[in-house]
Amino acid sequence: MKFVSYEVDGRASYGLVRDGQIVDLGARFGETSPDLKSFITEEGWQERCKALLETETGDYSYDSVKQLPVIPNPEKILCVALNYHDHIAEADKALPGGREVPKYPVMFARMPDSVTGHNQDIERPKVSTHLDFEAEMAVVIGKPTPRYVKPEDALQYVFGYSAMNEGSVRDYQFHSRQLTPGKNFYHSGSIGPWLVTADEIPDPQVLDIEFRLNGKVLQKANTSDMIFSVAALITYITEWIPLKPGDIIASGTMGGVGFTREPPIFMKPGDRAEVEISKIGLLVNDIIDEV
Amino acid sequence: MKFVSYEVDGRASYGLVRDGQIVDLGARFGETSPDLKSFITEEGWQERCKALLETETGDYSYDSVKQLPVIPNPEKILCVALNYHDHIAEADKALPGGREVPKYPVMFARMPDSVTGHNQDIERPKVSTHLDFEAEMAVVIGKPTPRYVKPEDALQYVFGYSAMNEGSVRDYQFHSRQLTPGKNFYHSGSIGPWLVTADEIPDPQVLDIEFRLNGKVLQKANTSDMIFSVAALITYITEWIPLKPGDIIASGTMGGVGFTREPPIFMKPGDRAEVEISKIGLLVNDIIDEV
Repeated sequence: MKFVSYEVDGRASYGLVRDGQIVDLGARFGETSPDLKSFITEEGWQERCKALLETETGDYSYDSVKQLPVIPNPEKILCVALNYHDHIAEADKALPGGREVPKYPVMFARMPDSVTGHNQDIERPKVSTHLDFEAEMAVVIGKPTPRYVKPEDALQYVFGYSAMNEGSVRDYQFHSRQLTPGKNFYHSGSIGPWLVTADEIPDPQVLDIEFRLNGKVLQKANTSDMIFSVAALITYITEWIPLKPGDIIASGTMGGVGFTREPPIFMKPGDRAEVEISKIGLLVNDIIDEV
Repeated sequence: MKFVSYEVDGRASYGLVRDGQIVDLGARFGETSPDLKSFITEEGWQERCKALLETETGDYSYDSVKQLPVIPNPEKILCVALNYHDHIAEADKALPGGREVPKYPVMFARMPDSVTGHNQDIERPKVSTHLDFEAEMAVVIGKPTPRYVKPEDALQYVFGYSAMNEGSVRDYQFHSRQLTPGKNFYHSGSIGPWLVTADEIPDPQVLDIEFRLNGKVLQKANTSDMIFSVAALITYITEWIPLKPGDIIASGTMGGVGFTREPPIFMKPGDRAEVEISKIGLLVNDIIDEV
């Protein structure tokens, strides 16, 4: 199944996607579950959704609503840097001091407002022209985890997967050792076009992932190339803190990012950015100047 | 005025503190404002609270309820590292590669569950004995900010101030360049004992701040020693992203932290950790082994 969060007629809602149509779950279950992250913790959501997909054709066309990030209000968005060998190699070459294959996942956080949804505009801020792209697979947690989840148990806590452009403002990213500022510009990234449930992706480590700028392929990899798998990331994070439904893990980007190129390539107003992941879908965003 | 978030009889609420008593605001305004961060955006909260303080003596004694972090569900907790010269000097000596006075604020994020409230236990995790203390002043935002807040306008967006023990698991903190893992262990830090409104602290840069472990003073400074003031931090953050009511900024710790000492001092079960800030109050937490 595919889930989305969206706005329609000024109302925030969430729903199921089928054949270009959205079945509005917020209108049906909003009293008890105001948002998608609470809906997916309701007992029996699967049966309820299956029944709806059998009887309903849809309330809105997918393209007629404003897509929000698949989970607009996650408590956590935890991201991993340096999780693909070719990205480490290019960073090693481009950055003072170089970068090595990390012994532990290199993790930082994004704030919810740093991302927008599918078909919405990514904003290049007034203060920088160094807005770079990063294609990533995003993982959404569906069940509260304990601490110290074992790798072999980790995927049972995953609700589903989405595509992410983990847009990064590179000059701010390198203001200090901490990546946080450059990773948290308002609507500098995106997550979408929907959230595909984990039953459709039994193995998240076999997916092709690609980034295109104005149709030109600039990043291309397979999620099998990750240094720390989704399961390994969940294990590492839960050594510190339990994960909750709606929490998002961004699983890292592959080689080909713009700032390491000669000359560098940055996203600029008028550009179209696309992240495509097999079995998940295509996330499209146009770039505009900050509103 | 002083605000708290707390649990009583298994119910989460928020209230006003006066003379060791709590006036329960959640019971009175919970229908429209389920939590403190929404209450402080209500039109006329000041008048409502003043009226209550004139007529009510209190619903609970402060000590009879379970204190939560002053804002238990902030969207953002943004923290600054290396914001006092004496802490930079000790880090420079202790850390490979050293540390310099930063040109820009060195910022990272904490997740809400990484902190607990006043009088609650801070947990030392199973996987580390390197649980260190960091006394800090926490700043809570009260009004939605625009982007690019000017330093001279910044404090008007502050709702109030609290004390924070920005507890840090040092071995995990130095797993990579990103501090995130060591800063996000479950209940490894704390915020409290209450939130003092900004009208009582017109200048946040003149406060004495001290950390004591088992009564012994280990950190001592004045917030005038900060490299980046509260206003400067708000200016820097809002270059990337607007701040919202309830967002928390941890303004950095001073010299004297445990890991830079010889021999190092870490917090261990049975210890009592205290952060005291003039005009704010005293935050007390006992240390226990992870539950």
